[in-house]
Amino acid sequence: MQRLKPKGRISETRLRVRYAETDAMGIVHHSSYIPWFELGRSDWLREAGLPYSEFEKMGYYLTVTEVCARYYHPAVYDEMVTVYTWVEEVRSRAVTLSYDVRDEQDRRLVMACTRHVCITHDGKPARLPDALYDVLKAQIEA
Amino acid sequence: MQRLKPKGRISETRLRVRYAETDAMGIVHHSSYIPWFELGRSDWLREAGLPYSEFEKMGYYLTVTEVCARYYHPAVYDEMVTVYTWVEEVRSRAVTLSYDVRDEQDRRLVMACTRHVCITHDGKPARLPDALYDVLKAQIEA
Amino acid sequence: MQRLKPKGRISETRLRVRYAETDAMGIVHHSSYIPWFELGRSDWLREAGLPYSEFEKMGYYLTVTEVCARYYHPAVYDEMVTVYTWVEEVRSRAVTLSYDVRDEQDRRLVMACTRHVCITHDGKPARLPDALYDVLKAQIEA
Amino acid sequence: MQRLKPKGRISETRLRVRYAETDAMGIVHHSSYIPWFELGRSDWLREAGLPYSEFEKMGYYLTVTEVCARYYHPAVYDEMVTVYTWVEEVRSRAVTLSYDVRDEQDRRLVMACTRHVCITHDGKPARLPDALYDVLKAQIEA
Repeated sequence: MQRLKPKGRISETRLRVRYAETDAMGIVHHSSYIPWFELGRSDWLREAGLPYSEFEKMGYYLTVTEVCARYYHPAVYDEMVTVYTWVEEVRSRAVTLSYDVRDEQDRRLVMACTRHVCITHDGKPARLPDALYDVLKAQIEA
Repeated sequence: MQRLKPKGRISETRLRVRYAETDAMGIVHHSSYIPWFELGRSDWLREAGLPYSEFEKMGYYLTVTEVCARYYHPAVYDEMVTVYTWVEEVRSRAVTLSYDVRDEQDRRLVMACTRHVCITHDGKPARLPDALYDVLKAQIEA
Repeated sequence: MQRLKPKGRISETRLRVRYAETDAMGIVHHSSYIPWFELGRSDWLREAGLPYSEFEKMGYYLTVTEVCARYYHPAVYDEMVTVYTWVEEVRSRAVTLSYDVRDEQDRRLVMACTRHVCITHDGKPARLPDALYDVLKAQIEA
Repeated sequence: MQRLKPKGRISETRLRVRYAETDAMGIVHHSSYIPWFELGRSDWLREAGLPYSEFEKMGYYLTVTEVCARYYHPAVYDEMVTVYTWVEEVRSRAVTLSYDVRDEQDRRLVMACTRHVCITHDGKPARLPDALYDVLKAQIEA
C-alpha cells in the first residue's frame, strides 16, 4: 500500500452493501471487504478481455499470497460503494493489484492491495501464460 | 421440521459465536447458522467412523437439496452454543438430518433440517455407497 | 414453499456470483444463497418506496423467523443470476416473502421463502407499522 | 508483518476448517482466515481476563484499521488448525496484534497482523481505557 496513485486502466465495480456483510458494530465487517476486491479484479480482467473463469479453464489459478487493507471509514448497510481496481505490478510469475473503495460522496473507505502467484491446477508454481501476461502488461502501460 | 424428536445417535458440536457471524441487529445473522449445521453433520459422520472428507475421496458428494431453519431466539457474540445433530431419514439415494441449536441455558435457538442426495464428482445422481448407507442405518436404529 | 406462483409485484435483482461464494465442490455453497434473498427483499422494499434502512430508522426490525430453500441446480462462479422476489403473505405482525433464483437461461436454481416478524429495537414483538403494512398490502394485491 | 517473533503471552485457538470456508480451488478462501484472527484475539483477551464482550459493555470498540495477511500454504476442509495470537504493540489509542496459523504438522499456513484503534460507541476516537491498557501492557512485557 505504499503507492496510492492508480496507473494504467482502472476498472469500476459498483455494489450495494448487503445486510449480511454488517456486524454488531452496525457497520460492514472488515472481512466483508475482501470479496469486494475479488469482484474488482474479476471485473478488471473481464474488461481486459480475459475473464478469470476462462483463465482457470486454461489450467491455472492466480492464488492469493498477500492481502493488505487499510480501513478509513466504515461502509454501512444499503449504501452504494465503488471499488476502483488497477494492476500495480506484473512479474513473470506474480501480479499485484490495488483497490480503492469509495462511497457515494467519493470518500475513501478502504485502500487495499493483493498479491498473486500463478499456479497450475495441481498446485505447482508456473509462469503467467502469455495470454494473461500480455493483457496485464498492455493495460498497465496504457 | 415436522418431527422434533431426535432419534438414534445424537452428536454434540460446541462452538463459540464469532463476531464476524453477527450483523447490524447485534445478533447472529440468520445465514451464519447454516455453516453450523454443516459442522454438526461433519461431526456426526466423523463420530460414526466415516469422516465426510473420506466419503468425498470415495468419489461422492452429499449435495444439499433442501434447508429449512426456524429461528426461536437469537445467538449473540462470544456465547457458547451446542448443535445437536441426528439423522432423520435414510433412503437409497438421500439423507435427511436435523439440528437443534441450544445456548448455555439449554434454550432452543434454532431448529433446522437439511436434505441431501448422493452424487458422483461429475454431478450424476448415485445410490449411497454401502459404506455410508450401512453407517447411517446402523446409527439411526441404534 | 407450497405455492410457487408469484403474485403481486415481483422485483428482479441481478447479481454476479462471487468466487468467495463458491466451495470445494466447485459450486456456490448452499449458505451463500441466503444473503441473495436478503438482497432480493431489500430491492423489493426499495422499489415499493420504503427502503429497509428507513424502516429500521422508524424503530423496527423485520427479524427472520424461518428460512426454507430448495436447491435445483447449482450456480457457479462468475455467472449472472436473477433473484425474483415477491410478497407471499402479509399479517398484522408477520410477512412471508418468496424467491425464485434463475440463471441466464432462465433455469431455476433455487426456490426459497423467508418468514419475518416485526419487532422493536429492544426486541419486543410489534404490529407492522402502517407505513409498511399499507405498502405490502397494496403491492400484493396489485 | 515485519516482526515474526512472538513476544509476551501467546494464546492458542484451535479450530476445525468448515466446508463453507473453502472455495472452488478446493482450499480455504483467503477471506475465511480473517475471522480466525478475530477468534484468536477474542481468546487472547478472554485469557487475559478481559473478554472483548465486556470491553464493549464499557462503551468502547476496538475498530480494525489495518489487516495484512501473508499466505504460505493453504488449509483444507476438516483439518485442525491452530491460531497463535500475541500483542505486538500497545499505544495510548491503538493496539497491534499478530497471528501465526499452523496446521497439525506445525507448518505455517498464514502470518497476519491487525491494527486497531479505540473508539466510543458513537464512533469517536478514545484512549484505551486503563482496564484494557494495563492488561495489554502487563501481558506484552510478561
